Amino acid sequence: MADEEEKTLIEILEENTPIDLTKYINFVHAPQSGAIATFSGTTRDTFEGKTVVELRYEAYVPMAIRRVKSICSLARSSWDLDSIAVAHRLGPVPVGQTSVFIAISAVHRADALDACKYVIDEIKASVPIWKKEIYANGEVWKENSEFLERRLEFGRGAQDKSTGVGGGCCGHVKVKVEAQDKKGCCGIKVRVENEEAAHVSNDNGGMDYE
Amino acid sequence: MADEEEKTLIEILEENTPIDLTKYINFVHAPQSGAIATFSGTTRDTFEGKTVVELRYEAYVPMAIRRVKSICSLARSSWDLDSIAVAHRLGPVPVGQTSVFIAISAVHRADALDACKYVIDEIKASVPIWKKEIYANGEVWKENSEFLERRLEFGRGAQDKSTGVGGGCCGHVKVKVEAQDKKGCCGIKVRVENEEAAHVSNDNGGMDYE
Repeated sequence: MADEEEKTLIEILEENTPIDLTKYINFVHAPQSGAIATFSGTTRDTFEGKTVVELRYEAYVPMAIRRVKSICSLARSSWDLDSIAVAHRLGPVPVGQTSVFIAISAVHRADALDACKYVIDEIKASVPIWKKEIYANGEVWKENSEFLERRLEFGRGAQDKSTGVGGGCCGHVKVKVEAQDKKGCCGIKVRVENEEAAHVSNDNGGMDYE
Repeated sequence: MADEEEKTLIEILEENTPIDLTKYINFVHAPQSGAIATFSGTTRDTFEGKTVVELRYEAYVPMAIRRVKSICSLARSSWDLDSIAVAHRLGPVPVGQTSVFIAISAVHRADALDACKYVIDEIKASVPIWKKEIYANGEVWKENSEFLERRLEFGRGAQDKSTGVGGGCCGHVKVKVEAQDKKGCCGIKVRVENEEAAHVSNDNGGMDYE
């Protein structure tokens, strides 16, 4: 476990701190590893035909770090990995810049590549990081569709097992979803009427959306 | 097609030319892409308990480039990709240094990640690049097991379809394999009695091993 902690680097970066890819690649680099897989998520210039100026990220940092640690441990239990580095920026991330970066080293390439895909998929699906898309003509808070789907799954599970009142992994999550035809990585919009509420969270991952 | 060529960079690097990862990441970086996946193959310090000093790579360069181009085109036909960069070093690659690097950008992450895995798997399986492992106490030419398996598959196919004489994708490939218990990325040894022959190749990919 001590070795696992030494070989795992998780950083949620404050505003206006670009992600230094080389730092994380160097962290996972090791003479015993023959493979390094990386993934960079960057702000792209358009979304559904609208011109994007930048994305802004906010997170409940202690829980985000706990969740990423848990994802890294699960990855280690599924693949034979050496080192893992995960970095996520907060605040504004202009077009073309990296908001999330993952680097994973392993003796064999299949382990590094498959684990890299797993880690980014799980981060998108289960880490409490929120995104505001700033367009040339407006802005909107977005919750990643995978995150929402995972929470709705938990919600259905909680409802099935309890009295049927409420929903969500801790029984009090209300989410309003604007359904869209095309499923994409950000294909579902979440309307947040009280922005402050989006940042209130407890150890069970509870968030109050209206 | 012109656009595809502009967005594909393939370099087989001469001896003692380290791979500059940033150069290839910058090449695939684009404001319209939200995802960049990369893979680095590096020389690791041990193989089957033996201390590795360095690997040495040789290639029939024109064919290697043609094959990599073909792999990139096939990747584009399977996934929605923006840019692809592939670099492979020749000559000695000391422990810890990168021998092959792939960077792929796409609008969505699944395309970039899946294509990256496909491209490295296909490079290992079908590009004529040979590797000599230099140990502390000796050296051995290796052919990647996947490359060999692919050639043997072609060979079986050719034999099935023809008179049953010969084998190999062009009907005259003879390979002597030392079977090993454990399958790894370099798990099969090829004995090359005439080293020069390993570099003789024609447009059909023919190589004469004894």
